[in-house]
Amino acid sequence: MTAIMSPANSESTPAQTQDDRDLLFYEGRLNRPTKAKTPELERSGRLRHVIFSGQFSVDLLEELAGVADAIRKLSKHRSGQDFLINLLHHKRAMLYFTQPSTRTFLSFMAACQILGITCNEVRDPQTSSETKGETRFDSIRMFSSYFDLIIMRSPIARLAESCAYLMNDLERSGNRSVPIVNAGSGADQHPTQALLDIYTLQRTFNFSGPNDSEHNSRFDDLRRLPGCENLSKGLAGKTYAFCGDIGRGRTVRSLALLLSNYPDVRLVFIAPNHPTLVMRDDLRQALAAKNVRFYEFDSFEQQLDGRPVIEALDALYMTRIQREHDTGDDAERYAALDFSRYCLDMDLVSRMKPYAPILHPFPRDQHFGEIPQEIDNDPRAMYFRQARNGMWIRSALLAHLFDVDGQILRYFHREFSA
Amino acid sequence: MTAIMSPANSESTPAQTQDDRDLLFYEGRLNRPTKAKTPELERSGRLRHVIFSGQFSVDLLEELAGVADAIRKLSKHRSGQDFLINLLHHKRAMLYFTQPSTRTFLSFMAACQILGITCNEVRDPQTSSETKGETRFDSIRMFSSYFDLIIMRSPIARLAESCAYLMNDLERSGNRSVPIVNAGSGADQHPTQALLDIYTLQRTFNFSGPNDSEHNSRFDDLRRLPGCENLSKGLAGKTYAFCGDIGRGRTVRSLALLLSNYPDVRLVFIAPNHPTLVMRDDLRQALAAKNVRFYEFDSFEQQLDGRPVIEALDALYMTRIQREHDTGDDAERYAALDFSRYCLDMDLVSRMKPYAPILHPFPRDQHFGEIPQEIDNDPRAMYFRQARNGMWIRSALLAHLFDVDGQILRYFHREFSA
Amino acid sequence: MTAIMSPANSESTPAQTQDDRDLLFYEGRLNRPTKAKTPELERSGRLRHVIFSGQFSVDLLEELAGVADAIRKLSKHRSGQDFLINLLHHKRAMLYFTQPSTRTFLSFMAACQILGITCNEVRDPQTSSETKGETRFDSIRMFSSYFDLIIMRSPIARLAESCAYLMNDLERSGNRSVPIVNAGSGADQHPTQALLDIYTLQRTFNFSGPNDSEHNSRFDDLRRLPGCENLSKGLAGKTYAFCGDIGRGRTVRSLALLLSNYPDVRLVFIAPNHPTLVMRDDLRQALAAKNVRFYEFDSFEQQLDGRPVIEALDALYMTRIQREHDTGDDAERYAALDFSRYCLDMDLVSRMKPYAPILHPFPRDQHFGEIPQEIDNDPRAMYFRQARNGMWIRSALLAHLFDVDGQILRYFHREFSA
Repeated sequence: MTAIMSPANSESTPAQTQDDRDLLFYEGRLNRPTKAKTPELERSGRLRHVIFSGQFSVDLLEELAGVADAIRKLSKHRSGQDFLINLLHHKRAMLYFTQPSTRTFLSFMAACQILGITCNEVRDPQTSSETKGETRFDSIRMFSSYFDLIIMRSPIARLAESCAYLMNDLERSGNRSVPIVNAGSGADQHPTQALLDIYTLQRTFNFSGPNDSEHNSRFDDLRRLPGCENLSKGLAGKTYAFCGDIGRGRTVRSLALLLSNYPDVRLVFIAPNHPTLVMRDDLRQALAAKNVRFYEFDSFEQQLDGRPVIEALDALYMTRIQREHDTGDDAERYAALDFSRYCLDMDLVSRMKPYAPILHPFPRDQHFGEIPQEIDNDPRAMYFRQARNGMWIRSALLAHLFDVDGQILRYFHREFSA
Repeated sequence: MTAIMSPANSESTPAQTQDDRDLLFYEGRLNRPTKAKTPELERSGRLRHVIFSGQFSVDLLEELAGVADAIRKLSKHRSGQDFLINLLHHKRAMLYFTQPSTRTFLSFMAACQILGITCNEVRDPQTSSETKGETRFDSIRMFSSYFDLIIMRSPIARLAESCAYLMNDLERSGNRSVPIVNAGSGADQHPTQALLDIYTLQRTFNFSGPNDSEHNSRFDDLRRLPGCENLSKGLAGKTYAFCGDIGRGRTVRSLALLLSNYPDVRLVFIAPNHPTLVMRDDLRQALAAKNVRFYEFDSFEQQLDGRPVIEALDALYMTRIQREHDTGDDAERYAALDFSRYCLDMDLVSRMKPYAPILHPFPRDQHFGEIPQEIDNDPRAMYFRQARNGMWIRSALLAHLFDVDGQILRYFHREFSA
Repeated sequence: MTAIMSPANSESTPAQTQDDRDLLFYEGRLNRPTKAKTPELERSGRLRHVIFSGQFSVDLLEELAGVADAIRKLSKHRSGQDFLINLLHHKRAMLYFTQPSTRTFLSFMAACQILGITCNEVRDPQTSSETKGETRFDSIRMFSSYFDLIIMRSPIARLAESCAYLMNDLERSGNRSVPIVNAGSGADQHPTQALLDIYTLQRTFNFSGPNDSEHNSRFDDLRRLPGCENLSKGLAGKTYAFCGDIGRGRTVRSLALLLSNYPDVRLVFIAPNHPTLVMRDDLRQALAAKNVRFYEFDSFEQQLDGRPVIEALDALYMTRIQREHDTGDDAERYAALDFSRYCLDMDLVSRMKPYAPILHPFPRDQHFGEIPQEIDNDPRAMYFRQARNGMWIRSALLAHLFDVDGQILRYFHREFSA
């Protein structure tokens, strides 16, 4: 591909491997601001590759949620299931997961299977081909010659993005090219996690109930509760609190940025006072640049709107402390901290607003105990439904990528809305 | 789930992990007699979870055999295959095999695929989620949110049973819940192995032949042979011999208990005289409680009905010595034993009744040699067909769990019986 | 099976395992000349098992190419995809890859999936069953009882061939038997790689272009170029050069033998002057026996037809040096060699005939650099298309094995040729 005919290359020192040169070649494109990148990740207004959460506009998020809802409802009926399973049964996906993640992996598998997509996987960090001296890009190009979609998760920051550029270069030179979906790359991005978090909030803040009717609805009931008089539907105008490992929380970062696109939201970050765990400057700056109101607290008891934040928030996003990424001093400094203050208990939950959902990207840590099991049965505990939502919204995203989302909506409205 | 609000929990010592507490919580239910447990493993007279061989009544075994026969015959015709492959193509199964077993694993995969069920697997003893502090129950609940069925094999005794209770608790509290199938847990149970052993005996003791007609049948021919005058069809009234590792044979145990439900059977256990290998007291007591006639021998030459048992038995179930579970002294004590007496040879086989099937749960051990290959071509060698039977009967079991067995029988009788 | 009742066996020493005896039993059949073996790998003129490249006659290669072309074109249309995906959706394949090869593995997976075949895999060199003392043949027979096809790759020379004989013996004794496809066994054979190399040459030497019309075609244009006046379509009468690790190149060996079946071809082998890397005697003799003209060179500059061979060849097959198979002295002797002479560069490529394709079995070695990436965009670079061709031709081979190739051709001509 054209990549290698670039100056970046001819300058390359002998010490470099081709893998190094491949990434180096894309350096320039990788370093552009997200805004400048998004156009080449799209084709005629649709996503072609899914790399950043920044690609999801509020409108697109609404659109995908609608498709996900349709897929969910179709899946309740045999005729709907048959329709879905035949939609993309001729497509083959490669799940290239060199960074392990059972949950994300299985969620994508299920999302593919709902639409009939056949899944293939490579999870061994170094495939046998790579041991034979094959470059990463040759491996990716091999996958693209056998499969119709590459869903990849890698410990290498920005590899997924580079692969999207590789695919674009191939497309431009008239070669075979397939969509790339980033299922988590390095520490930087995990866009489909943010997607399912938003989808869960969209469903929660729709406030619909099983017994809703013309005359009565869960939403009306909620508004009759003290302090809920001004409750409104949707994500706008609400206060979102994040608790735990804010500094290393890839999902916190992505979700906060997506929420900042909704009007009039407030973000609260509750973390132990520890350099590794508190908010990073780049996120501070990104939020400031968007004029989002945000607060950095170190306790559920700090005041917001004249009351403890645990009572003031509209949604609580819990996270686990990512011990596996600790450095030596981290562990040391931890000794001084009282982590129990960043774990929920029934008493704290009972003080939350009656409708305020508790989310968690999962897995939760049984040893740290940020969410004890006794909370699982509280109606506000949304984290298990959140996992299932991930499957539906990823299916919707795949339908969007293969341009069958419109077909799904038409079928749904024709067969099931009447 | 409600689990954790139990006293068992509040009493728990800090040393305990949540995993410990989860199992402890079910202690009470786990310790009930099987009879008391079966009801909550059923829904309106059908199996919901498959945990014990004790769940299979003689009637249910007949029913499942009928479904398995129909599936087998449908699979011989393209139209039948198309019918089957579309029956459950919208269902997704998780095969959670943290205890390796290629044979059982592949048999379940094939059984799912015959009905169009898409298979997913987790085989790594510790999934990446567990390394992040996730509890086993959170992992199971994750699987249940993405998939429609969990087939699990685990080294942890009674884990499958506990998961079935977890699913029941979730169902009761209005959450998503899926069937659990035990594909072998700890040393205690391997119900689907017993199922395929019985199915193989059902087919063998049907005595049908390829050339059966109104006027003549293999069964009539057999009854004309000396000593076979009183031969009857079916499993009742027959003598079943088990040879080899009786003490540790999970499959021996399960099969013996199922056979004891048939009228007038006799069971013979042939094992080296070694505490590890002979029958365990709990099985002795279980059989005694059911008034089954059983015998403990240490040789094929011991007398039954006035002749060597090898000549008296109606079916012979061979097993391998499970060396991988040996302790230090086991190996030592073995020195004194002549294991060759627990290996078949052509001479022994030639003395068996002409219709008596030889079964083996497989794999057989080429080093121990309990069944030398020269026996493979003897018409009594049933162990390879036994493996294929396992695929058919597991398909029938899955059809039963998803309530499409009736549909299969109706289609079969409409299209193929005429 | 009958295997074990053979004298070969009774003579066997106690030191032998059953695995040893199993292979020993087939010794006689394994040592026959290929010609004598092929009949029992066929059924009524169709391939039953795919073991050697020697099974592919020129006619069969033409036939398979036609089926592969039809599958490729059908896959461009939704109706064609639906036709293909339903063709064999009731079939289950076992990919038994105890010698790793991501590329071959994925290519077969995709080839199966195009026709709707469900794939299952065992890749762990020792399955849990084998650790329990199961013989290789018992494992293979287990696979054959659950699945309809076994695609196997093994480090053990001639294991695939032995398994084909096992299946034939089972068939003869009225037992279940399935086709065996050799996806690479030991150092000897990799027939489907040779198949895709030939298919790529068939497509290249068809010289068709996107803008071909009645009045003008790429072929005519090429013939107008100086030195191309006598260019003819097809593989006959052309000069094929192989460069790199000729001695250990399993694919070089298979392809050379297939090419030698075409009239009037010349083969050139370009390798460093090193006993491990140059042509082996057995290949020399095989080619001599077929009266093929072949040349052994150590440089692209050696003369053929009065000019450097790089300018004289019609197709160039590059390979990587298989360092993973080096012995101690190999590495030592290498020091004396200038490997750069066996790597392509833009200058060499520019001297090749304008239509001469560059092939490579892949993966290429980024450290050795036999094909630098800057060549990827040259129209002669065929190695990425070659990979995708492997998927199509393997699909065609599977269609042939399951006897649906005729159905594909009929459907294609009815629906798409008009």
